[in-house]
Amino acid sequence: MEFDNSISFTAIGTVLNEFKEPASPEEIRASESRIILNPGLVEGLLGLEPGGQLMVIFYFHLSKGFDLRQHPRGDPGRAKRGVFALHSPRRPNPIGVTVVELLGIEGNILRVRGLDAIDGTPVLDLKPA
Amino acid sequence: MEFDNSISFTAIGTVLNEFKEPASPEEIRASESRIILNPGLVEGLLGLEPGGQLMVIFYFHLSKGFDLRQHPRGDPGRAKRGVFALHSPRRPNPIGVTVVELLGIEGNILRVRGLDAIDGTPVLDLKPA
Repeated sequence: MEFDNSISFTAIGTVLNEFKEPASPEEIRASESRIILNPGLVEGLLGLEPGGQLMVIFYFHLSKGFDLRQHPRGDPGRAKRGVFALHSPRRPNPIGVTVVELLGIEGNILRVRGLDAIDGTPVLDLKPA
Repeated sequence: MEFDNSISFTAIGTVLNEFKEPASPEEIRASESRIILNPGLVEGLLGLEPGGQLMVIFYFHLSKGFDLRQHPRGDPGRAKRGVFALHSPRRPNPIGVTVVELLGIEGNILRVRGLDAIDGTPVLDLKPA
């Protein structure tokens, strides 16, 4: 990585849920998660409504390295595909994007369903879906 | 920004189009853009098919600072909303996410339609939409 070209972000919040270790995306998505927003950013939530959808952009903080071609879901029975045709967390920039259901907002805490990010995941952005 | 908490990425490619200055998203989207992928990453495109949709994650490199509450589209006639309820480029982490139509791939060059990013925009990731 060349320093001159690096693009730096700071987490706006963190995911809180029961998944302390990587698990299947389906399993995590079925469960409820909380997003603990940096308290200084709470005013940025104005206009988000429970019951609606929200796009969550996050950092796969445990992902190390990548291969340009990977078996889908790590299944050696499936032909390799390019990383840009997969949702694998092992990618050049380990960024995840998931549309979730916004269940509720209490202060700086958002309750969501459908997020496939484990506990402690840094959140980079939230957008209307 | 605290150095300890910073999350760094490197562009995987760059947008090439006729928009050298910020313009309305609609105007940019209606036009065709090219994404010039870092040539070393071309193998990562395997499985992407022209005619399909592609999610492009990019860095609003000209965006400076943000307000937690902003008038939608900068229109003072519209009530302010929270930045996380808007697609404004002026956000805590200036990340854009747009689903585009993939028109063609030639080597490391992807032709797309529907991208609302100006010329020179660093691309952070591509994913199946």
